Amino acid sequence: MIEQTMPDQADFLAACRDLLGDTYVLTLDADMAPFLTDWRDRFTGKALAVLRPATVEQVAGVLRACAQWQVPVVPQGGNTGLVLGSIPDAAGTAIVLSLARLNSIRALDPVNRTITVDAGCILQTIQEAAAAAGCLFPLSLAAEGSCTIGGNLATNAGGTAVLRYGNTRELCLGLEVVTPQGEIWSGLRGLRKDNTGYDLRDLYIGAEGTLGVITGAVMKLYPQPKACITALAAMPSPAHALRLLSLMQDHCGASLTGFELMSQYCLQLVAQQFPQLPRPFAEAHGQYVLLELSSSQSEAHAVELLEASIGAALEDELIEDAVVASSVAQSEGLWQLREHIPLAQAQAGKNIKHDISLPISRIADFIAVTDVALETAFPGCQLVCFGHLGDGNLHYNVAPPAGMTDRDFLANQDAINRIVHDQVHAFGGSISAEHGIGALKKDDLAHYKSPLELQLMRAVKQALDPQNIMNPGKIL
Amino acid sequence: MIEQTMPDQADFLAACRDLLGDTYVLTLDADMAPFLTDWRDRFTGKALAVLRPATVEQVAGVLRACAQWQVPVVPQGGNTGLVLGSIPDAAGTAIVLSLARLNSIRALDPVNRTITVDAGCILQTIQEAAAAAGCLFPLSLAAEGSCTIGGNLATNAGGTAVLRYGNTRELCLGLEVVTPQGEIWSGLRGLRKDNTGYDLRDLYIGAEGTLGVITGAVMKLYPQPKACITALAAMPSPAHALRLLSLMQDHCGASLTGFELMSQYCLQLVAQQFPQLPRPFAEAHGQYVLLELSSSQSEAHAVELLEASIGAALEDELIEDAVVASSVAQSEGLWQLREHIPLAQAQAGKNIKHDISLPISRIADFIAVTDVALETAFPGCQLVCFGHLGDGNLHYNVAPPAGMTDRDFLANQDAINRIVHDQVHAFGGSISAEHGIGALKKDDLAHYKSPLELQLMRAVKQALDPQNIMNPGKIL
Repeated sequence: MIEQTMPDQADFLAACRDLLGDTYVLTLDADMAPFLTDWRDRFTGKALAVLRPATVEQVAGVLRACAQWQVPVVPQGGNTGLVLGSIPDAAGTAIVLSLARLNSIRALDPVNRTITVDAGCILQTIQEAAAAAGCLFPLSLAAEGSCTIGGNLATNAGGTAVLRYGNTRELCLGLEVVTPQGEIWSGLRGLRKDNTGYDLRDLYIGAEGTLGVITGAVMKLYPQPKACITALAAMPSPAHALRLLSLMQDHCGASLTGFELMSQYCLQLVAQQFPQLPRPFAEAHGQYVLLELSSSQSEAHAVELLEASIGAALEDELIEDAVVASSVAQSEGLWQLREHIPLAQAQAGKNIKHDISLPISRIADFIAVTDVALETAFPGCQLVCFGHLGDGNLHYNVAPPAGMTDRDFLANQDAINRIVHDQVHAFGGSISAEHGIGALKKDDLAHYKSPLELQLMRAVKQALDPQNIMNPGKIL
Repeated sequence: MIEQTMPDQADFLAACRDLLGDTYVLTLDADMAPFLTDWRDRFTGKALAVLRPATVEQVAGVLRACAQWQVPVVPQGGNTGLVLGSIPDAAGTAIVLSLARLNSIRALDPVNRTITVDAGCILQTIQEAAAAAGCLFPLSLAAEGSCTIGGNLATNAGGTAVLRYGNTRELCLGLEVVTPQGEIWSGLRGLRKDNTGYDLRDLYIGAEGTLGVITGAVMKLYPQPKACITALAAMPSPAHALRLLSLMQDHCGASLTGFELMSQYCLQLVAQQFPQLPRPFAEAHGQYVLLELSSSQSEAHAVELLEASIGAALEDELIEDAVVASSVAQSEGLWQLREHIPLAQAQAGKNIKHDISLPISRIADFIAVTDVALETAFPGCQLVCFGHLGDGNLHYNVAPPAGMTDRDFLANQDAINRIVHDQVHAFGGSISAEHGIGALKKDDLAHYKSPLELQLMRAVKQALDPQNIMNPGKIL
């Protein structure tokens, strides 16, 4: 189908073709399709065009054209977001601005321990470039083979290494951003200390493309650990897991690089759906924690430290049992248990997901109270609770009672979200720990944030994007 | 002297007295004096009054009154800043808003590893409260006995633990801020992950009180290291020191908690002015590095790791000699050498200070080029170069040639600043690494920042403080 465009839109598209060449201005439905549907296949938007610039200057040219013709802009990286932040709405008036062709590694400085990259670089490509230089780029998450660093920055992505290295925000030293007016801000500084005015960098990070387009970044690198070792510990309750976390942090400090909680029901689900995976314990326990230790010294040092810590935890009766991986293969087997939880859930049927965070000290109480609240409202519902306990981040997912159809269950989605998020709010937590707000959680944000905080955010948005053309309808 | 006030000012002061009580509205010169002169005694401003609220609600009331009568507000913590950021200008129309009476520790959560504090808490009080709970609050700097956490946050203070723990920004999880309109934003979250909208927290941090008044904060705590050990290494050049930094980071990872560079001239100055301090080496070397290692395990582990690393550095010919402190007293003696450099400088006469940062990999080249540029322009001038090399932060200070009077020398201050800052700029560095901009470096900021970055900052300022009553004349 050839879209009928208005005269203004035709002028705008002609200007874009002049800027980018015909090949990189997609307007046919078939060409645009991959850019219009979200990763979890829940929504398909419409766009006036998908634009694929190759340089920062082309991005700036596109933004100037968008400002001139008042065309909304939806920046897009790998389109792996989970909150409908990188696809347009159904109006068909916006363009999708794909950053995928800006995919060069601009520089790597092993002494400064920084890598300077285009926003469209795939996360895994950056990890590999760092490793080739003997360094570690620690950001790691499930979508790393297809997500881009620009998307990671725009959403302040978390992942599995936050406990030791922080979120994407903490890994970024400098940014290059194209403003909604089409100007290029070159903030590509590689400095650990810089107190020269307002922190614009952190304002753009996590803004989900609503304040400007991130086109490049300077990211921190770390020394590669010499060894990394994994264990699985079993314990009766989340409260025991919290006490184990304190003990491990006291004993291991920054060597503790992973601390992932999984309930018995999670491992049961994985065992049902993936019977080929290891089953480390003969008996069932209430909760499990996947521990990861890294050493800058040697494997022997990591093993010694891990075994001493586990010994102390057994002595304090914090844990009932533990296995330490004695090979890379065993270690990968343990991580696979953790990584297969979402896959096992998907195979088992529909579920309602929550990406929440809490003060770490409140987690056991939160789980106890919320489990009861859900069981009372929806008797027999199944709670699939796992996550990055060391960061206070839970994936607290709810599956239907045995015998209930997905359709009947999903009809209760709003009520279930409200029960979970009300408890999160009451315990001082966040309704979006690492995924962001996008279009999906916009109403939740408006419900739970204070009017003053929303007003401050709107003032910032109005100041930097007065035409409201940057990813409208996302966050605010 | 009793100030003659305008009718409007009298109404404003009456409103303040209603809010705070007469005792806490200072208008007599003698009462106000301690609040009006900067730490280094370079400038004395004038104020309409010094206000000393005791609660957040009183701060909000004061801000509402200031907004109503359009009275400029200069927030002040411990008044230990180095860039004239916490004192008013000479106009006498502003109030100083002292946060010193907001000095409660509101909560300490050892499991979440957070401490919630009033802005007026003295840094050392927070360190001690953390230690009493078996935790470490790592922010540490020379003024810690009198500076406040609110000032640390407003200036994003650095200090000696940045290499391992980051700047004040990285240590803060949540803020409470009173807006210029007198509303209270309660952002006191204790979460490691929270992706719900714009990062207002980091916007207020480092804004030097120009966007609002920080009244409370949630700060991160860490496990106390079991042991901490210090060494002093000697080497021919800054380039050797940089290679040593890479080696130490590879060997020790996060256990490396201090890496301070000092030139031969620095230690010579300290030896002249403080002959009672230790002289670790019989022979002179070009440069010295103070190394600090912390271990979450034991002193034996720290010693073993440090000695192995120093052995590797000797083998690679990165260092010429080294001493490892064998007692707490010896360790303190080595730190005293470092800490006495500014004192020795002060005793020796005037000097022109620069608080700069650079990409770590450029530091040796920066020093080489800038030393020559200064020697060419001012033959015989003395370069007192030391700093937190692990963070890329140098205190690059210039003292007069032998025989030149302080007065003649200081007449060249602008020319010397320009030479140093031009090189900083050329090497991709920052003209204010950890002290901020205040009133002192405002013109430098305007000179070196891009017009676009300044325009973005002004847009943010205008959005959040449209009346321009928050610390006017600072930063922008």
